[in-house]
Amino acid sequence: MTTVVTGGAGFVGMNLVVALLQRGEDVVLCDGGALPPAAERALKPYGKALSVLRGNILDPEFLRGVFSGRRNANVAHCAAITSSPQREAREPAAILDVNINGTIGVLEAARQHGARRVVYVGSSSLYGEALFRQKSVHEESPVFPETVYAISKHAAERMCGRLRELWQIDVACVRLGTVIGPWERNTGARDRYGTHSQLVDLAVRGETAILTPHEIRRDWLYARDAATGIMALLEANSPRHLTYNLSSGVEWETPVLKWCAALEAAFAGFQYHVAAANETPNVSYTDQDRCLMDTGRIAQDLGYAPQYLRDAAYADFIEWIGRNRDFYTKPGN
Amino acid sequence: MTTVVTGGAGFVGMNLVVALLQRGEDVVLCDGGALPPAAERALKPYGKALSVLRGNILDPEFLRGVFSGRRNANVAHCAAITSSPQREAREPAAILDVNINGTIGVLEAARQHGARRVVYVGSSSLYGEALFRQKSVHEESPVFPETVYAISKHAAERMCGRLRELWQIDVACVRLGTVIGPWERNTGARDRYGTHSQLVDLAVRGETAILTPHEIRRDWLYARDAATGIMALLEANSPRHLTYNLSSGVEWETPVLKWCAALEAAFAGFQYHVAAANETPNVSYTDQDRCLMDTGRIAQDLGYAPQYLRDAAYADFIEWIGRNRDFYTKPGN
Repeated sequence: MTTVVTGGAGFVGMNLVVALLQRGEDVVLCDGGALPPAAERALKPYGKALSVLRGNILDPEFLRGVFSGRRNANVAHCAAITSSPQREAREPAAILDVNINGTIGVLEAARQHGARRVVYVGSSSLYGEALFRQKSVHEESPVFPETVYAISKHAAERMCGRLRELWQIDVACVRLGTVIGPWERNTGARDRYGTHSQLVDLAVRGETAILTPHEIRRDWLYARDAATGIMALLEANSPRHLTYNLSSGVEWETPVLKWCAALEAAFAGFQYHVAAANETPNVSYTDQDRCLMDTGRIAQDLGYAPQYLRDAAYADFIEWIGRNRDFYTKPGN
Repeated sequence: MTTVVTGGAGFVGMNLVVALLQRGEDVVLCDGGALPPAAERALKPYGKALSVLRGNILDPEFLRGVFSGRRNANVAHCAAITSSPQREAREPAAILDVNINGTIGVLEAARQHGARRVVYVGSSSLYGEALFRQKSVHEESPVFPETVYAISKHAAERMCGRLRELWQIDVACVRLGTVIGPWERNTGARDRYGTHSQLVDLAVRGETAILTPHEIRRDWLYARDAATGIMALLEANSPRHLTYNLSSGVEWETPVLKWCAALEAAFAGFQYHVAAANETPNVSYTDQDRCLMDTGRIAQDLGYAPQYLRDAAYADFIEWIGRNRDFYTKPGN
């Protein structure tokens, strides 16, 4: 099986590419940006099983080149702009263009070239304020997309549903929770850089983290589990639903303090403390205290279960960072 | 006060333009298409109070020309593609482009040129299946946009909310119910042609309408009331909410049969009957039996009340058709 991964050099995309290759599959990695050296190194062993194609998913010629001669390919559409409010104010149309029209272009190419299935990698951000008001959100919960990112990811997901019907194509969608783990970086397409990765930056440089007094409550999703869930949806015979929540589904206790402790044990010189009254934190926590995502549907339909909860995820991530220190070379790389 | 009306030659747009001019306001009518002769005739008396600008709202140069030198203008953004499923399958990206990016372009021009307020003319289609499952829908009801039209109108409305926040602009939105009345026609942007107007076509030609056995249950909105509601939102000091349902809020009893009876009384030769077992109806009813739209918010905040329920609307519409028979010259004009 060949799998086309758009946004393959991005955070979720790279995790998926590596997992597919490790399982012996062929992968076509598409991305608008170059691979960082750590990614080149990680992908080198797979030789001909991997094709790397650099180009813009908004360019139909590029998509033609990606899909031509690859009938029955699976497609994981990870390419998206995850935008900061600053970018949203500056270029809202450009974000919509990549996230919505990019998705339509991929669906159209998949249809023309007879792809087997497209998995659209969507976002739990479409639940909006429900994430902060409800006890949990499931796939039939009302949506309240508020940011340009959430609006665009929701519209693109709905377009998957509509074009599945109109074009009779095989499409299914995951709604990702908050992902942490290997391969997160500030590319030109990723403005939001998670708390865990910010702490890694400080740890690798042997600096001190000044934390916000408040912890984060969240059912984090480890990046390798994100890849596993996407693969499960790519490979299922015929998924019963259009959309699937994909998260760990359980709250991680004191995730920031535990991550700091894990980093402190691994990186000499790294220290951390909660900000004193006269101090400004140097780590940002966004969207605190989200509720759980209900993962019953993906568990039941696809047999998905997260393999990496907090401690296992942290151990794996620390080990990965140790092998890829050059991935964290400069602030906000 | 000057009001810019995008899509001003369209169905809702023309009703709004006429109502604004009748009240003595200045209007800038923008549209991608030409005015039909009946519209030229209706607008002629208003002389310099009206400017007609023909161009594409996706063209920033056109928008610059529309907004330049018109600080503090009100803006009613009616331009949209109301698409058939066939168009949705054929050119989904083009529909999204006009309905979403067109809206962003108008908001951006309004911001740059210091417009007073933008009213986005949105659609109740965003409620999706809730319209057929619930007893009524209010503005905080969950949304289920399903068609490309509904997806695009919902995304554009959400963008109004987001850009209002990011850009600190004054924007408010109506969600129109199902509009009937003067000025509905199949332009290049309007694929869906309502049951009432289909019957007018037959009546003007003295033909026979063959009806579906089932009636339509619906809280129709007469086009002049749509204009009144949009004007109320344009003129309010500071609307308390971002979105307002705009419909009549009451079900019209046997609307199709009553409309046929009104047409029969006015147009010699027009006849109608319910399809016999071996007959195919020649009038289409789309999306039957929608629930009521709750109009409590617009009534309370803006003092809006519909002036044209079924009988008053039908009397007015019949009178209008009598003066504008040339508007219905050929099938699906």
